[in-house]
Amino acid sequence: MSKSKSMRDLYVELLEDSYDSENQITKALPKLAKAATSPELKKAFERHLEETKGQIEKLNQVFASLDMKPKRKTCEATKGLIEEGDEMIEEKDELEEGVLDAGLIACGQKVEHYEIASYGTLCEFARILGFKDQQKLLAAILKEEKAADEKLTQIAQSSVNSMARAA
Amino acid sequence: MSKSKSMRDLYVELLEDSYDSENQITKALPKLAKAATSPELKKAFERHLEETKGQIEKLNQVFASLDMKPKRKTCEATKGLIEEGDEMIEEKDELEEGVLDAGLIACGQKVEHYEIASYGTLCEFARILGFKDQQKLLAAILKEEKAADEKLTQIAQSSVNSMARAA
Repeated sequence: MSKSKSMRDLYVELLEDSYDSENQITKALPKLAKAATSPELKKAFERHLEETKGQIEKLNQVFASLDMKPKRKTCEATKGLIEEGDEMIEEKDELEEGVLDAGLIACGQKVEHYEIASYGTLCEFARILGFKDQQKLLAAILKEEKAADEKLTQIAQSSVNSMARAA
Repeated sequence: MSKSKSMRDLYVELLEDSYDSENQITKALPKLAKAATSPELKKAFERHLEETKGQIEKLNQVFASLDMKPKRKTCEATKGLIEEGDEMIEEKDELEEGVLDAGLIACGQKVEHYEIASYGTLCEFARILGFKDQQKLLAAILKEEKAADEKLTQIAQSSVNSMARAA
């Protein structure tokens, strides 16, 4: 068998994985926002939905600069992560106050970390391959994902503190 | 329906998810180590396998201090992440030199970030619930996962640099 798969091919595959992941996330975030009880958390999910749409736009630009049409390669990991969120939402009537939000934050942070790992790798690949403009776009997405993760940590800590005070 | 699920219940569920995840990872790491071509990467996966066994032992202690037997709750996300690694290994004969290692590192870092998010949440939950000893055990695991992720970044950067020099 000829060795036909290059770094560039692997880079494109990882891009397609992230493209699918972001598209799955745009479907999941409205459900998370709807389920969240804290207005701050609801707003954070809604804000991240807008950001995610912008990230898909940035990925479109990355594909364009590779002279390719954007393509989705099913991301099984994101599917699994979103299932965890769905399970949490299904259970919501059984959860004591505050527990649903804590669970939604936990799911959201797992998704963010998946994205942080993915874009960290993609940035490094773009750098090696000498795709400077693409590297910039991917680094911008990575920065947003890290900020979204930090925002969720802040909400977890503040809401958790108020829960602890109320107890 | 009575609201019966508390923060403690959610904490236990997340522990069971991580317990399953670590057990899945002990099965996956030997395959990653076997497939890796760089001796440094092979060693990193082997070292992390030993670390993972220690983490399972720490989780056993967490369950013991909750007066519970360790239980596994299938972690779909880890399943998906490991599938990505398996796909990479299956394709190995088609990959140009260095590409397999780059792909294995990418998979490994996604798994590490899943763990970082999980133990970040678990530490926070242990803190809120006042389980100080458990919090310490979980924080120790979190530290190891972060170090494992950084180690993979280092290997990626050094091997990638040598690839770039060779090109």
